[in-house]
Amino acid sequence: MTSSARDGLFSGMFARGGAAPEVSDAAWLAAMLDVEAALATAQAGIGLVPDEAVAALEEACRPELFDLVELGSRAAPTGNPVIPLVAALRERVKPELRRFVHYGATSQDINDTATMLVACRALAPLLADLSACAAACARLAAEHRDTVMTGRTVLQHAVPITFGLKAAGWLSALDGAWAELAELRLPVQYGGAAGTLSVLGDRGHEVPPRLAAELGLAEPVLPWHTDRTPVARLACALGMASGTLGKIATDVKLLAQTEVAEAAEPSAPGRGGSSAMPHKRNPVGAMSALACVQRVPGLVASVLGGMLQEHERAAGPWQAEWETLSELLRLTGSAASWLREVLEGLTVDPARMRANMDATRGLPMAEHVVARLGGTPEARGLVDAACARAVEEDLPLREALLADPGMRLTPRELDAALDPAGYLGSAATFVARALEAHPPGPTPR
Amino acid sequence: MTSSARDGLFSGMFARGGAAPEVSDAAWLAAMLDVEAALATAQAGIGLVPDEAVAALEEACRPELFDLVELGSRAAPTGNPVIPLVAALRERVKPELRRFVHYGATSQDINDTATMLVACRALAPLLADLSACAAACARLAAEHRDTVMTGRTVLQHAVPITFGLKAAGWLSALDGAWAELAELRLPVQYGGAAGTLSVLGDRGHEVPPRLAAELGLAEPVLPWHTDRTPVARLACALGMASGTLGKIATDVKLLAQTEVAEAAEPSAPGRGGSSAMPHKRNPVGAMSALACVQRVPGLVASVLGGMLQEHERAAGPWQAEWETLSELLRLTGSAASWLREVLEGLTVDPARMRANMDATRGLPMAEHVVARLGGTPEARGLVDAACARAVEEDLPLREALLADPGMRLTPRELDAALDPAGYLGSAATFVARALEAHPPGPTPR
Amino acid sequence: MTSSARDGLFSGMFARGGAAPEVSDAAWLAAMLDVEAALATAQAGIGLVPDEAVAALEEACRPELFDLVELGSRAAPTGNPVIPLVAALRERVKPELRRFVHYGATSQDINDTATMLVACRALAPLLADLSACAAACARLAAEHRDTVMTGRTVLQHAVPITFGLKAAGWLSALDGAWAELAELRLPVQYGGAAGTLSVLGDRGHEVPPRLAAELGLAEPVLPWHTDRTPVARLACALGMASGTLGKIATDVKLLAQTEVAEAAEPSAPGRGGSSAMPHKRNPVGAMSALACVQRVPGLVASVLGGMLQEHERAAGPWQAEWETLSELLRLTGSAASWLREVLEGLTVDPARMRANMDATRGLPMAEHVVARLGGTPEARGLVDAACARAVEEDLPLREALLADPGMRLTPRELDAALDPAGYLGSAATFVARALEAHPPGPTPR
Amino acid sequence: MTSSARDGLFSGMFARGGAAPEVSDAAWLAAMLDVEAALATAQAGIGLVPDEAVAALEEACRPELFDLVELGSRAAPTGNPVIPLVAALRERVKPELRRFVHYGATSQDINDTATMLVACRALAPLLADLSACAAACARLAAEHRDTVMTGRTVLQHAVPITFGLKAAGWLSALDGAWAELAELRLPVQYGGAAGTLSVLGDRGHEVPPRLAAELGLAEPVLPWHTDRTPVARLACALGMASGTLGKIATDVKLLAQTEVAEAAEPSAPGRGGSSAMPHKRNPVGAMSALACVQRVPGLVASVLGGMLQEHERAAGPWQAEWETLSELLRLTGSAASWLREVLEGLTVDPARMRANMDATRGLPMAEHVVARLGGTPEARGLVDAACARAVEEDLPLREALLADPGMRLTPRELDAALDPAGYLGSAATFVARALEAHPPGPTPR
Repeated sequence: MTSSARDGLFSGMFARGGAAPEVSDAAWLAAMLDVEAALATAQAGIGLVPDEAVAALEEACRPELFDLVELGSRAAPTGNPVIPLVAALRERVKPELRRFVHYGATSQDINDTATMLVACRALAPLLADLSACAAACARLAAEHRDTVMTGRTVLQHAVPITFGLKAAGWLSALDGAWAELAELRLPVQYGGAAGTLSVLGDRGHEVPPRLAAELGLAEPVLPWHTDRTPVARLACALGMASGTLGKIATDVKLLAQTEVAEAAEPSAPGRGGSSAMPHKRNPVGAMSALACVQRVPGLVASVLGGMLQEHERAAGPWQAEWETLSELLRLTGSAASWLREVLEGLTVDPARMRANMDATRGLPMAEHVVARLGGTPEARGLVDAACARAVEEDLPLREALLADPGMRLTPRELDAALDPAGYLGSAATFVARALEAHPPGPTPR
Repeated sequence: MTSSARDGLFSGMFARGGAAPEVSDAAWLAAMLDVEAALATAQAGIGLVPDEAVAALEEACRPELFDLVELGSRAAPTGNPVIPLVAALRERVKPELRRFVHYGATSQDINDTATMLVACRALAPLLADLSACAAACARLAAEHRDTVMTGRTVLQHAVPITFGLKAAGWLSALDGAWAELAELRLPVQYGGAAGTLSVLGDRGHEVPPRLAAELGLAEPVLPWHTDRTPVARLACALGMASGTLGKIATDVKLLAQTEVAEAAEPSAPGRGGSSAMPHKRNPVGAMSALACVQRVPGLVASVLGGMLQEHERAAGPWQAEWETLSELLRLTGSAASWLREVLEGLTVDPARMRANMDATRGLPMAEHVVARLGGTPEARGLVDAACARAVEEDLPLREALLADPGMRLTPRELDAALDPAGYLGSAATFVARALEAHPPGPTPR
Repeated sequence: MTSSARDGLFSGMFARGGAAPEVSDAAWLAAMLDVEAALATAQAGIGLVPDEAVAALEEACRPELFDLVELGSRAAPTGNPVIPLVAALRERVKPELRRFVHYGATSQDINDTATMLVACRALAPLLADLSACAAACARLAAEHRDTVMTGRTVLQHAVPITFGLKAAGWLSALDGAWAELAELRLPVQYGGAAGTLSVLGDRGHEVPPRLAAELGLAEPVLPWHTDRTPVARLACALGMASGTLGKIATDVKLLAQTEVAEAAEPSAPGRGGSSAMPHKRNPVGAMSALACVQRVPGLVASVLGGMLQEHERAAGPWQAEWETLSELLRLTGSAASWLREVLEGLTVDPARMRANMDATRGLPMAEHVVARLGGTPEARGLVDAACARAVEEDLPLREALLADPGMRLTPRELDAALDPAGYLGSAATFVARALEAHPPGPTPR
Repeated sequence: MTSSARDGLFSGMFARGGAAPEVSDAAWLAAMLDVEAALATAQAGIGLVPDEAVAALEEACRPELFDLVELGSRAAPTGNPVIPLVAALRERVKPELRRFVHYGATSQDINDTATMLVACRALAPLLADLSACAAACARLAAEHRDTVMTGRTVLQHAVPITFGLKAAGWLSALDGAWAELAELRLPVQYGGAAGTLSVLGDRGHEVPPRLAAELGLAEPVLPWHTDRTPVARLACALGMASGTLGKIATDVKLLAQTEVAEAAEPSAPGRGGSSAMPHKRNPVGAMSALACVQRVPGLVASVLGGMLQEHERAAGPWQAEWETLSELLRLTGSAASWLREVLEGLTVDPARMRANMDATRGLPMAEHVVARLGGTPEARGLVDAACARAVEEDLPLREALLADPGMRLTPRELDAALDPAGYLGSAATFVARALEAHPPGPTPR
């Protein structure tokens, strides 16, 4: 959020990865200067501004020439850092060129285009981390295509699945989150004081496509000063990515529980330690990702609630977007970076998975026995009774079933029915589908 | 939310339009029954279920055969209405066909697919209302392409715009919201107890494409029991549509203020009256739309926060989606229906727009005068001084400017510079662009 | 939310308990009629209204005389059900008394006072359920004061605690949530069209204290039409109560996991069953409570965001409160009702708690051994090394420690250090404190 | 949020006032060190720790001895800055005293107590700014007790009020928000690894009251590691304060509209200027306060949603509180600081208020005429008809009424009925009440 948000007490958790520096104050300043320079270039391309002004601006638009703290304090009386920035820029060019600085623009043109530029730059490392997460899931899905574990519904053992299927579900969700972010159109803003570009006479509309090309952004249909759809769409896509990361982190957190112990985060000296308990190895990555993710939905709601912007420029909801978007990018980026480490180094314990599966002594296979018995209500009644007896008398389900005189399966048939590996349905096919649908490599944005 | 949500004390405001009945309890029940029937049909298509069972199910899956209240009360002990519904369905078919009811399915398969079906059916009238809103804006944009009004930034008069440009901005945002909703992929869910479809042996994966075709929904890559992206994407698209409707309602509310009076909602006997003040004509439509919209971002955040679903089925966050999505569809639908009435009957007062513009006696044209004077810092200094004098001494800007010895424009040039109609920049071009980008007619979903 | 919200498909989960009927449309209507009648009574007390009018209103203000659906549909054009309600009421009294119906009031006076009355009535069963939850926790805390179990931090085994301490923590939080709700001041609203009560001349301010006394509500300093603090405070207190219920439900959900199995929800035929898996016994109560709770923070945010109300009556944010508050009361009430059943019937398994504790073979006692060794960095180094060895070589910690030549404790001393029951610190004292701080019985509101 | 959050590009808007520096990283570090030192002092008071250790800790616990950036980066692997901080502290004391550093504590004890300390310190300037806002409102209420203006409901002219009444409403809400914050109990946290304080044997529970006394905080009933009520209560109180500030800022923003112009923010060179429009004087203070306030409800929801904390320490939701609370304090503080400037320098224009009132030519007095005519339905019918005619034919209401043959008031009586100053009801009484209820001076926290 500020230039040192990634260098603070809590930045290790909440500003991890490559997105955080791209939303620093320094990055915002650089983006604003890039927009001012690009605007002049775009205007020069159609003869509205002399080349000399472009050169002067390119010379002046270097971040190192400006003092963030001073700009910030001079921004307060006007409620916008662009106003003192433009004043400072004008001082850096010859008097006769000053009118070409910020030509025909309103401060919101610069803020909004800079917002899109900041987002574009912060999304690059975030997308790379999401890709890496997906690649790790693809590897896990392929490696563990046949690793049997218990499926868990409502946190209770259900029928068997494979860890490959679980990883394939993560993969598919990550691919979706990636695509949602990668396909965003991030438009430039250029409308002048109230969206008419009146300072440029009737040629204003020629500027946005050129400005967009200069900055690698998209061209909007018309100025969107108070149509905040581009910002909301970005916030929502980040919200969905965060939710997906949070789902995976939730699974890792639960699998890493002492009693479950089917997966463990990568260990390293000092990682996951506790100040009071020498034996602890906490799932620090999942925990940190979840801490980031917890904060995201409220920020998305803030952006959506802020769409109600008045007339041609809003008094409050617009300005509220700046830090909020920075946080959304930073926190989603941090969660992705944490999860990448978790997934790339995840230790999976197939033996423990099998042992946990077996601890319920056949109960999760009851559905399969029902099916092998024909799936009739009678079959279900018989199996229900055997399950109840198995639970009450602490017997394996096999024994309880065989003791039932109505049991029509032979012991051998029953063993087959009770084998988790023989009851995996389309799991392998679904794994294959998710792998097939996964883009082969990191697609450049 | 319940079958009578549209027939209650507050339903006139919050359950207006065609979406509300599509999210009623009766609509949910109908959707669940449609899914059960379609599932059998899909399975029969590949020989998993006998045609006789399909016929029996089609006969049984009629909503009028079921008692909502009884189903609801029987749902409590299991936390899911599908469980008693399936039990009731089975009682309605011959014993030997009962195993083919809900074959290979888990309750979440039915809930989730029904959710998508309910959404699909509720989106149809919502999209129609959004289209009608857009059409009304297109008409307003075309009709008022040259209607000069003041642009307002931070609720202060800025430079002139046209009402056509304002309407074009509304139009462009509505078209975006429409497309976002119309392009949603709403997938079926079919994964069985834990996503493997194990009851169907290795043929389970053949069912989803057929089920999707039966229901007019999309086919997912794999079961998405705990990848809630489809639900989150729907919620976000509704959030963006609501925000767009809220932006327009905000503008209408502000334009209808007694002191501004540039636009008025359609009037009808009893509409917008007050219990205490006989003279009041409240902007009831904008107010009601805003009341609906106010409630949406928190609901979207609830869905996003609920994406953190455990393992193969969540204990809480999943179930929390049902009523939340109903509300999102109902409230967004109601807001769209309100705004449609507002926009289709909006009274625009160009004379008042011009009078309000003139009340600031030229001040908003100051920027133009600066431009005509060459846009230099000196020009701006001169105009700033004249503005200050005009405000202090309560003079028209024209007079203050002419009194300045440094003024280089002739009175005639100054009059041209002070004419709002001559300072509209690319407004007409932007209007044309928005109209061009607007889809010609209601695109069927 | 509507009169049948508790009788719908999803009402078993989301409209359980006594709060739901108190927020039905019928309850809202009854509250509005009670306010109209009480207003006349209060005014008659100071001679502003004839006793005959009071009698007529009491006769007319019976809910069974009104048709909810008709009122709702007549409310739409004005955006408020009070307007048609007053019209209908006036028709039910003699013409010469009609002016004393709704005398000096604005519709918001009735809505807001009815809101507080609805809240007051819905809070009663909610507070009773919270009290019962607390009583159950108090019993569990007392009974299990010495039941050793593992403490779990970041879902990993930490040092031992008692189940009594865990229940005492739940108790203390519930007592706090109860007090927060029980101590709310719920004020009447009576200000007339714009807060001046001008219709009553200079006597208007004499009415609110009498109205408050009539209805059992509080008197405000002045009309609060656009100071929504009373509503926000109610929403926040419900949000905190929900969060507390959700924390307990989270613990129950985690303790009930198949692998943990230290606690189980009460069982009953059909409770917690699964449509596909005959052996499942889901923690339906915790799950349902969590589903309710998941939806609450977004609703609280909606109320807080809606505090920005314009001038003397808001256009949207105010009206948005009605259904939102109903939902907050209904969902919090439902969660409390679910949790009451869970806590009153909770099965606790001390043997399994001990077994889970022992499964880590002494590691959670490492901190104690460090302490017994003097708590020095050296002691910690020694214990850390033993822990590491125990983990690597799959040894009990006792063995790994005794194998270390630097170990200064005797085997007997070490056994004492490794006994969880001897390392419970102030657990029993904290249990006693929570019990002492717990109010002795249900305090009437 | 970080040490320089108040020195960044956007800090002028979002980190104004005295709260921001109290939530900087430097302030957090100082608070953590204060807690560690106070803990030793409290323990020494009951003989658990030697005085020498206290002295050593007081010497070591100076913020300038620590490097924030290094601590932050060392915090990442454990997910908590307290762990490296304790390690660094231990290095700064003699080896034989090291065991008394952080004695018996877990990192959460320090984080949570520091959170409360940070909150306590940030609340002081925030409460001072709220007090100053209230004092300014009290002055406005007294000065403008008789300043007639139009009441506005749903943004339409309603019956007359006084500006004093409006200010009294602001005052009452601010007093409520102040009290809610001032009365918060901010408890220390001290429970050790899992809430038993086992390291201290059976004396742990003697420490919290002494620790609380040392730090000026409250004593909890028992450790509240996963009962987040204290944090939620703080967040909610900040949410309500923000909502109150936002309501006032909304009114100021609307009153300052060009067309309304009844109030203006204080002006100063450069304040409220626009980069493109020399004549603009934006309501920068209200706008900035609204930008802060817009971001608050989502943060409160994030805290409430995070109450669902697992077992004895949560994996994610707890850690998510740190920056969120800092932001809540910073943003609410910034809004209060902005609004203080606005209210202390607010320019009120009674003449314009009167002129706006008169612009509707008597219509808002219609209710009064109805009352003077006896308040009967017939009277209302007559006045309704006159209002309709006045609107249609653009007549003053007086003329339309006098033209009605059924009019029973004399012109003189009618003039009295149409005089806004004669129709203010209890406005002056309500102003007096709000002033009476207002605390006489800033109450020290």
